[in-house]
Amino acid sequence: MLYLIGLGLGDAKDITVKGLEIVRQCSRVYLEAYTSVLTVGKDALEEFYGTKLILADRETVEQEADEILKDADVTDVAFLVVGDPFGATTHSDLVLRTVKAGIPYRVIHNASIMNAVGCCGLQLYNFGETVSIVFWTDSWKPESFYDKIKRNRQNGMHTLCLLDIKVKEQSLENLMKGKKIYEPPCYMDVNRAAEQLLEIIQSRRNQGKELAISENTICVGLARVGATNQKIAAGTLQQMVTVEMGGPLHSMVITGILHPLEIDMLKLFAVEKSSFENIHMEDSSTYIS
Amino acid sequence: MLYLIGLGLGDAKDITVKGLEIVRQCSRVYLEAYTSVLTVGKDALEEFYGTKLILADRETVEQEADEILKDADVTDVAFLVVGDPFGATTHSDLVLRTVKAGIPYRVIHNASIMNAVGCCGLQLYNFGETVSIVFWTDSWKPESFYDKIKRNRQNGMHTLCLLDIKVKEQSLENLMKGKKIYEPPCYMDVNRAAEQLLEIIQSRRNQGKELAISENTICVGLARVGATNQKIAAGTLQQMVTVEMGGPLHSMVITGILHPLEIDMLKLFAVEKSSFENIHMEDSSTYIS
Repeated sequence: MLYLIGLGLGDAKDITVKGLEIVRQCSRVYLEAYTSVLTVGKDALEEFYGTKLILADRETVEQEADEILKDADVTDVAFLVVGDPFGATTHSDLVLRTVKAGIPYRVIHNASIMNAVGCCGLQLYNFGETVSIVFWTDSWKPESFYDKIKRNRQNGMHTLCLLDIKVKEQSLENLMKGKKIYEPPCYMDVNRAAEQLLEIIQSRRNQGKELAISENTICVGLARVGATNQKIAAGTLQQMVTVEMGGPLHSMVITGILHPLEIDMLKLFAVEKSSFENIHMEDSSTYIS
Repeated sequence: MLYLIGLGLGDAKDITVKGLEIVRQCSRVYLEAYTSVLTVGKDALEEFYGTKLILADRETVEQEADEILKDADVTDVAFLVVGDPFGATTHSDLVLRTVKAGIPYRVIHNASIMNAVGCCGLQLYNFGETVSIVFWTDSWKPESFYDKIKRNRQNGMHTLCLLDIKVKEQSLENLMKGKKIYEPPCYMDVNRAAEQLLEIIQSRRNQGKELAISENTICVGLARVGATNQKIAAGTLQQMVTVEMGGPLHSMVITGILHPLEIDMLKLFAVEKSSFENIHMEDSSTYIS
């Protein structure tokens, strides 16, 4: 049997009781370590689970799935994923390979940012399509996430923005030289995401285009959701550029139409309490104080 | 401290290790029992958690929050919610009351249908607004959920449909007589949801309106997600009327634009394998075989 087990979002103890029992009985346990991270490392997990973990990077999962599935028809293998196992596309691929090999599989679900984001008080029902904001480079500045945010806002929906993670990536130079030397891991923070969005807004404003969001759009920054030191900050997009969120992982929400109860919840996390006191709707998708 | 603790979706062991440790140290533990259910009852939870649970129905949470929060400034109180604590609006309300009373709170997240639905192979990123399909009566047949599904489909998005739950509800007669006699709990199944949708489609077709979904739209029925006897069935909306899903809870997805990998995953759960073999896109939102 292959078990795909979600680890949740905080630390070693966010695994479910069922998940932990299974991990402890498996003959091999892989830890997927490239689509998200916990606030603790592999060592802390190994100590708490009482078992050795095999790190599975993107290469392993995409190219060496056979290695993961080896003997899984006669023994139990666990594949651990931060959050829930069905957050990332590559795990669908692993499931399909498992079924094709005639091996049964089972999923042990857990919280992921896709549902835990509700802790900021925005209703999950009112979220539209989720977007990923990627690190821009000097020559590559994709804006497709902006258009998705725009569409969600036109429909009054909130947008969860997942922020880029670069783990075990090679520099262009090392890639071209075929050197397997990896850059240090890099996690986009809320400040950077807000800066990139503001750059798009400024560029579209200069082109005379209609804007879906502005410097004053209410956003929510989230960091280390589920951990004891999690931080939530609600404020304008402009405020998100300078808000101090601390270490990774970060994500950000661009709000759509806000229900009064949602506004009350956001006030709990306001960057500036005063700016939420007399909040009112400017148009169908913008609130100002 | 008030702890809001998610129980996940299956049985007693789907609580997280952290959640279980907290439950066992709290002086009072409430179980919210009206927005969702596990596959096991209160007794099984009490036995596994090793503590007595106080059932909290909608009335208690909405009208007697003070009772729940009593002494929570000097002792630890847990409020257990099936799935994740931020699935339902009323829990935001409880958080606000907690903060207003000067009591600290903490959330222990868990899986909910909002993210566990990914187990059917549809990518969470591609879901639009979530809708609730309510039980129709002879005189009350709201169609607002259809319009939301339509908007999601026009944007190529999947729609998660949460199906109605009636727990501790009074009949109109008993309500008018002021008798606190409650009807047996009632959970909408996939068949009923599909029937109601087909009735809307037929009615709009008769009015000559453009249709967002048809009898052939690919849907996914899900039952008891996270439990060992969970069932997932992929097929046309017409097939959803007769598919056998077993006991509650059910939910349903109306698909939008499908990625080839999503189609491969849905094939694993096809009501009729043959109908997924030569699936192709008829228009931007409809696939036919």
